[in-house]
Amino acid sequence: MSESTDPAAGTADHGDDWRPSREAVIDLLGLLALGELLAFERMAVDARLAPDLGRRARMSEAAVGEIRNYRLLADRLGELGADPAEAMAPFKEAFRAYDASTAPRDWLEALVKVYVGDAVGDDFFRAVAEQVEADDRALIEQVLEAGSAAEFAAAEIRAAVEEDPSAAGRLSLWGRRLVGEGINRAQGVAAAHERLTELIAGGGGSVDELLRRLTRAHQDRMKAVGLNN
Amino acid sequence: MSESTDPAAGTADHGDDWRPSREAVIDLLGLLALGELLAFERMAVDARLAPDLGRRARMSEAAVGEIRNYRLLADRLGELGADPAEAMAPFKEAFRAYDASTAPRDWLEALVKVYVGDAVGDDFFRAVAEQVEADDRALIEQVLEAGSAAEFAAAEIRAAVEEDPSAAGRLSLWGRRLVGEGINRAQGVAAAHERLTELIAGGGGSVDELLRRLTRAHQDRMKAVGLNN
Repeated sequence: MSESTDPAAGTADHGDDWRPSREAVIDLLGLLALGELLAFERMAVDARLAPDLGRRARMSEAAVGEIRNYRLLADRLGELGADPAEAMAPFKEAFRAYDASTAPRDWLEALVKVYVGDAVGDDFFRAVAEQVEADDRALIEQVLEAGSAAEFAAAEIRAAVEEDPSAAGRLSLWGRRLVGEGINRAQGVAAAHERLTELIAGGGGSVDELLRRLTRAHQDRMKAVGLNN
Repeated sequence: MSESTDPAAGTADHGDDWRPSREAVIDLLGLLALGELLAFERMAVDARLAPDLGRRARMSEAAVGEIRNYRLLADRLGELGADPAEAMAPFKEAFRAYDASTAPRDWLEALVKVYVGDAVGDDFFRAVAEQVEADDRALIEQVLEAGSAAEFAAAEIRAAVEEDPSAAGRLSLWGRRLVGEGINRAQGVAAAHERLTELIAGGGGSVDELLRRLTRAHQDRMKAVGLNN
């Protein structure tokens, strides 16, 4: 484990008695809540790229799990005495920049964006669940149990690549671009939010280490739908 | 009651033993399902016009009732042996044209569009419920019971007009425009779908009469949120 003092690297080695501050947990839940809210909106918007009304409807239906997760996280923020909108606001620009640089041009790009975003998001939820206390851990497990948009997207991508193997190259490239942009934004967020970074790295390790772990898991998942990394 | 032979006027006087055909019911459920699906998408898209993240999230949450209704209607279409996507397809262009001519320019216009669309939609559901048989009537009642997006929009509009009474004129004009465009599209749909028109006018009366009834109810509702008609 590196012991860099660069806050962007997010290195932290807390003792066993370290507990995240209320403020750090509010930052974390605000980040997660905004991620769910925007994933919902993005899916409903990108549903319009579907080649037929049946798939369009299925994308919209798959989005409902995200807004349900948003509600769970927003309620928990309320319990902690925080205003959900205020807790989300600091992360708005990072998500806006990510979406602006990764607007899908067609239905398959939209599906890959759902798949990558939802799956990397779930991995991130799992990783931070280890750093928080019982109540918040239970909440995060509940969020992870909600119907997965990634399953719907994975089935569609797999079928599309089987039918037209020539799409795999373009979509693999697109998947790498999504992860690259995502890592950029995540590093920016980590650099600007020290107490959040401390929480994420709370169990030892660093944000960079976590990002490497998420990237490796992503590469395995790309293979699972017939794409290269 | 007029006895026009113009199919666009949709006049029909069936006897007491008249029952809508399976095909006409499929047309009706396809129209309603597409209306719910597109209302969901429109709300999720227009949520981005919200002035803050709290309202943005509430708009998205209010949209969930619409996709739930879509599912109820799509399942019923399945029970009738119809493919929901195929049943919806004939009405796609009418909704596209309506949305293209009524894109809201700001948050308040988006709310008025939700309010007018949802409420006029509910009135239409109620009117056609009288024309269908028990199973479909029960389904429509279930759809009408689902949480109302109109309530959320009405509360927001009322508060905005109280805070800034000068907004009322502009929003009243916008409400009239929405209804005008909606009536245009409805007349087009009625003219192109004779068996659907027959179903709607099944209890006597005409589509034009129904549209006049919906317009009057709309005018009362505009007053209820502080707007003129």
